[in-house]
Amino acid sequence: MAKNLTTRAEDYSKWYNELVIKADLAENSGVRGCMVIKPYGFAIWERMQAELDRMFKETGHQNAYFPLFIPKSYFSKEASHVDGFAKECAVVTHYRLKNAEDGSGVVVDEDAKLEEELIVRPTSETIIWDTYRKWVQSYRDLPLLINQWANVVRWEMRTRLFLRTTEFLWQEGHTAHATKKEALEEAEQMMHVYADFAENYMAVPVVKGTKTESERFAGALETYCIEALMQDGKALQAGTSHFLGQNFAKAFDVKFATKEGSQEYVWATSWGVSTRLMGALIMTHSDDNGLVLPPNLAPDQVVIVPIYRNDEQFDAVSEVAKKLMTELRAQGIRVKFDNRDTHKPGWKFNEYELKGVPVRIAIGPKDIEKGTVEIARRDTLQKEFISMEGVVEKVTSLMEEIQNNLFKKAINHRSEHTTEVNSYEEFKDMLKTKGGFLSAHWDGTAETEERIKNETKATIRCIPIDRKEEAGTCIFTGKPSVGRVLFAKAY
Amino acid sequence: MAKNLTTRAEDYSKWYNELVIKADLAENSGVRGCMVIKPYGFAIWERMQAELDRMFKETGHQNAYFPLFIPKSYFSKEASHVDGFAKECAVVTHYRLKNAEDGSGVVVDEDAKLEEELIVRPTSETIIWDTYRKWVQSYRDLPLLINQWANVVRWEMRTRLFLRTTEFLWQEGHTAHATKKEALEEAEQMMHVYADFAENYMAVPVVKGTKTESERFAGALETYCIEALMQDGKALQAGTSHFLGQNFAKAFDVKFATKEGSQEYVWATSWGVSTRLMGALIMTHSDDNGLVLPPNLAPDQVVIVPIYRNDEQFDAVSEVAKKLMTELRAQGIRVKFDNRDTHKPGWKFNEYELKGVPVRIAIGPKDIEKGTVEIARRDTLQKEFISMEGVVEKVTSLMEEIQNNLFKKAINHRSEHTTEVNSYEEFKDMLKTKGGFLSAHWDGTAETEERIKNETKATIRCIPIDRKEEAGTCIFTGKPSVGRVLFAKAY
Repeated sequence: MAKNLTTRAEDYSKWYNELVIKADLAENSGVRGCMVIKPYGFAIWERMQAELDRMFKETGHQNAYFPLFIPKSYFSKEASHVDGFAKECAVVTHYRLKNAEDGSGVVVDEDAKLEEELIVRPTSETIIWDTYRKWVQSYRDLPLLINQWANVVRWEMRTRLFLRTTEFLWQEGHTAHATKKEALEEAEQMMHVYADFAENYMAVPVVKGTKTESERFAGALETYCIEALMQDGKALQAGTSHFLGQNFAKAFDVKFATKEGSQEYVWATSWGVSTRLMGALIMTHSDDNGLVLPPNLAPDQVVIVPIYRNDEQFDAVSEVAKKLMTELRAQGIRVKFDNRDTHKPGWKFNEYELKGVPVRIAIGPKDIEKGTVEIARRDTLQKEFISMEGVVEKVTSLMEEIQNNLFKKAINHRSEHTTEVNSYEEFKDMLKTKGGFLSAHWDGTAETEERIKNETKATIRCIPIDRKEEAGTCIFTGKPSVGRVLFAKAY
Repeated sequence: MAKNLTTRAEDYSKWYNELVIKADLAENSGVRGCMVIKPYGFAIWERMQAELDRMFKETGHQNAYFPLFIPKSYFSKEASHVDGFAKECAVVTHYRLKNAEDGSGVVVDEDAKLEEELIVRPTSETIIWDTYRKWVQSYRDLPLLINQWANVVRWEMRTRLFLRTTEFLWQEGHTAHATKKEALEEAEQMMHVYADFAENYMAVPVVKGTKTESERFAGALETYCIEALMQDGKALQAGTSHFLGQNFAKAFDVKFATKEGSQEYVWATSWGVSTRLMGALIMTHSDDNGLVLPPNLAPDQVVIVPIYRNDEQFDAVSEVAKKLMTELRAQGIRVKFDNRDTHKPGWKFNEYELKGVPVRIAIGPKDIEKGTVEIARRDTLQKEFISMEGVVEKVTSLMEEIQNNLFKKAINHRSEHTTEVNSYEEFKDMLKTKGGFLSAHWDGTAETEERIKNETKATIRCIPIDRKEEAGTCIFTGKPSVGRVLFAKAY
């Protein structure tokens, strides 16, 4: 095709990078590891935000906003938390610049040094729990169900657009509960919410499960996750939900008076998804011609391209196109009519294929004569002429059909790339030849997990929540195991 | 009243601070000058965002996202810009912490010092124009109409919740145009958009105008603004829109090929409103009983409070309340039914008065008998019983009535506090006794402006765009003037 995209078969990683740039989703900025999310990419993220935000509110959560900066001392209060994040955080040390004495520009003003350094939040547990101490007095104040949409910074050494960037956008839920049971239910519920979103909006099938101890969030007692499989056979963690026990409540002294009058520490969860979801969306559906978007998240679900040779034809075609646009919009469909005279139809066809618009409609003078339009599907690249009267109905049903087809294709790909392996030889072989999820017995120790990781780069993605009990022996040590876990190389 | 609020007459400033805390809008955090926006405050901000975002999109703008950090060298490229912001910016100098050798916690790792310091954005012109250089090649790429919702940081020495905080939330529009005329029109258009939002959603009347040279944004050739008047007679700048000329295009070398093939620098605007609007909203309408919210921005427009003494009564009242809630929601009204059994009706009445819910409906067993409900308006504190059949119609019309009434009250207050003064004595007198906007002749020099400011603390808020030409003499120097400008003490 004319997109000049590297193909997936040639170099999957290069294909991804080129696609993100060429489809106008994002680009690298002048700041190391930080990206610019371009309007088209941001419009997709806004649709993700809108749906997730609705789902959070429907499950009783409210949004709030906490400071970008975290005093260094807060950070140290929860031991495993600081270990997990201290090595990758941006530190503010001064609050003023001044003119350089040699006139070479501005320099840091050493007279404006902070007494205590501030960390740019890598995640907000510490500043939020410091606040919750003031908000929680009694059982009447619980549960506290809060979400925040925010930017966070983790100083990553190797970055990739959307998948791993120094600054990224995300939401972080932070809840406080009276009982352990309630907090566990909340953490599990949010995993289901994330899975629902991934599957029904992103059309990305996910495995729900829990993380092994070594893969857990720094400070969590249990981490629930959703794991997706990309087209290159690598896994991508798409969302996590943590049961934090009473760790943060104890670190920040957050207690409540029970109905009976005693003082108890509250129970916590936190959960988040980020602009990383954009990477999952792109890599699950797109092809060598460019982006493929599921209708439920496409900023434009339908684009109408007029075909004409002169003003008269343009006017006639425009009239029909605008009428169709109005009818489609009345059905709640997001339609764009690209009537720019600066670009030819062929160029536009290419452009919208590259940008993954689910349905393209072309209308020319011959169509008007015959009372037809040409409809092209992005997912299958099929084209057909259909009569003008049937267009609205056809396009409406295509929205659902394309959404379902993308999900089905992704499910099939995952099935074909999920393999039960029963020996370490088979495991290594499969990892090399086919990749994907490898379902295998493991002895449950962090040591074995670590050794397999060092030797093969595969990690335990999760212990599926719906795994069946099955006695077996660990593929690495031969020790007994009670059920299979999912291994994969991961993003 | 029982809110224990300091009254406005006693101490306006204290009243404001207490109200923000007691109405659960925001609070100070453990980080100097940074606030926590609480769920109720954030819900109001979300409504503001939703309306503004819609207005921006309707005028052709798209959202995008640019990095939080700005390399120090970018900052220096536009001379007046760096002068304006260098003295109040947070500087990131390191990217890692490490464990202290004495075991006392974590310290900055001096081995992880950045080669070039990063500034936490106080505004994003520089990083955005560095990006626009890549986006703009030809006249076909223009206009570029971009907006960003973001957090920004300005190291303020004296902070107040919402009005002036170290970190605040805002939107910043950044547009690029082929001609000066177009850029000027854009800057002016956005002032009108802001005014429309302030008046029709916030019910806050504003004066549209331009800033004097000394009050302009650092880097702007013209700053359009909207100025509101608070109940204490002080002005509040509610939004600004800047015509930046070619300053940033030249600083960042952003040129485009014209239709004719020549290379020209593009013309720029930027415009923003922030969480400061929350301060304007609060201070314009609220009273000694608490917050007063205009229906167009109230998270809950109506609250229904059940009155009951036993379970049986509760069930009967609930049934009626839920039916009413469904009917009101069908009209698009945001209704909350507060059926908590942990708080008494009187406590709830107080609570919703404090939180400014526009309409409160109380339903008890006697109401059910009589087929009535009690409706209380927050703006006038009037109560009346009306028949159940008429409730939906009554409440629907109240939404508009309250919105209009708040705007009218604010307009009246502004009229009463806008005075034409014709001598410096009168000016100083009025400033001391009544405050408000003082409409006066000024000779047009920065020197006079500065001297009046130093002597009286009053600044020129704006040169109203609709001022009439009127020959006069400057109140301070007696030199000739072509029209009046608006002075006031300001937040």
